[in-house]
Amino acid sequence: MPALDGARAVLEALDMSVEAILQTHPRSLGADAGVLARCIDECSEGAAHCTICADASLTEDDVRGLERCLRDCLDCADACVATARILARQTDPDPATQHRQLEACLIACGECAGECERHAHHHEHCRLCADECRR
Amino acid sequence: MPALDGARAVLEALDMSVEAILQTHPRSLGADAGVLARCIDECSEGAAHCTICADASLTEDDVRGLERCLRDCLDCADACVATARILARQTDPDPATQHRQLEACLIACGECAGECERHAHHHEHCRLCADECRR
Amino acid sequence: MPALDGARAVLEALDMSVEAILQTHPRSLGADAGVLARCIDECSEGAAHCTICADASLTEDDVRGLERCLRDCLDCADACVATARILARQTDPDPATQHRQLEACLIACGECAGECERHAHHHEHCRLCADECRR
Amino acid sequence: MPALDGARAVLEALDMSVEAILQTHPRSLGADAGVLARCIDECSEGAAHCTICADASLTEDDVRGLERCLRDCLDCADACVATARILARQTDPDPATQHRQLEACLIACGECAGECERHAHHHEHCRLCADECRR
Repeated sequence: MPALDGARAVLEALDMSVEAILQTHPRSLGADAGVLARCIDECSEGAAHCTICADASLTEDDVRGLERCLRDCLDCADACVATARILARQTDPDPATQHRQLEACLIACGECAGECERHAHHHEHCRLCADECRR
Repeated sequence: MPALDGARAVLEALDMSVEAILQTHPRSLGADAGVLARCIDECSEGAAHCTICADASLTEDDVRGLERCLRDCLDCADACVATARILARQTDPDPATQHRQLEACLIACGECAGECERHAHHHEHCRLCADECRR
Repeated sequence: MPALDGARAVLEALDMSVEAILQTHPRSLGADAGVLARCIDECSEGAAHCTICADASLTEDDVRGLERCLRDCLDCADACVATARILARQTDPDPATQHRQLEACLIACGECAGECERHAHHHEHCRLCADECRR
Repeated sequence: MPALDGARAVLEALDMSVEAILQTHPRSLGADAGVLARCIDECSEGAAHCTICADASLTEDDVRGLERCLRDCLDCADACVATARILARQTDPDPATQHRQLEACLIACGECAGECERHAHHHEHCRLCADECRR
């Protein structure tokens, strides 16, 4: 889907909505606003993809073989939601809390992507979810 | 910020990522994929904006006067996260659950937008948050 | 399980942990601290039961017949988490937001309980989840 | 408050509700049901305490000095919610995801407890929240 990939690239260049509000924060940010916004946006997108992939997996004929995929997606969505919120807070952040939560999220994303990839050739939602989790 | 508004319009035309994965769902969707994706994306964006606005409000000199704004933002973020997840599930959805949760979210967004607007002239994060919650 | 029911009754009489911290809130509460604490505790318990019931359902031989049960449990868990948080905030609460979110949660709980009851005779986790959602 | 402490001890001995549903899970659990249930319950209780403590802090006269406390509480609540859900899933769990998320939660709890303890002598909600986060 090269058109979609192209659209996505434009999208990423243009999506400055979270970045814009981060730049109005009275405190100096713990990281570059663009990088932070990208992390927060990817966590939100990841949570949506994982929730949809888990839900779609539930209806597949081979649901039995998708058990692990489904539960990895649910875990990943939960880790993404928590991480988006914790990274979004820039008032007196505790570096250890931010670092460890981001790390836990990356582990969950990696596990989810790995499992979804195994089903990517026969389930398009798994392919899109794996792509999202690899970002 | 007309440039940002323009970018946003392009963004909305192009952001098909959640829509794309929704269209791979084996079941017929309860609503048009584009409309559903837009709702899910707006809830995710709303949650991020509200979390950042609450956090930024905490550091303002007039934090005392922003109490209600801060708590409305936190409520709105919670309602948005739950609504994004519930709308994202398209397997045998219960119409009453989806309808009522969306309604609760719209109430929370309306309250949050109304309160943030009161502070929009002196806090840019409130202005951006109100704009997001009015979508 | 009358012993468990008895224990539960004692538990409910004794569990004053959330009530205790609510009573230290500097503002006057929007409702009786005991009632509020009970609501918050039931939402937390409900979220845990629904998450476990959905996960257990995924491994049952009749997972195909539990699709709706599983997704209702996931919705109910999300509504419960949001509601617990929104009710826990007692600083300048917006009555409409609190009321509508609680209402959305009760709808989700009722739907989940109804669906779990259909499977209660052959899945003990569904029976316990339905009991919890009926509280 | 020795009466409350006593009640709490009885409570912990009696609260078998989450443990009971975990024991109906068709798969063998990744840890002792009692230990798992205790973790899930403490995460739920922690999330409620932190949400209430953050909200109460917002109304205190010294809110300026409670900024870090308030944001640590919000982070801790988010980490607790994600951890409760991830630990509650016992179907094909990924050990690394479970381990890292629990670790991130413990870091957030430790930070929150440390900060709340600094205010425990003048704010009872901080004392109760610190106690809960130290469990």
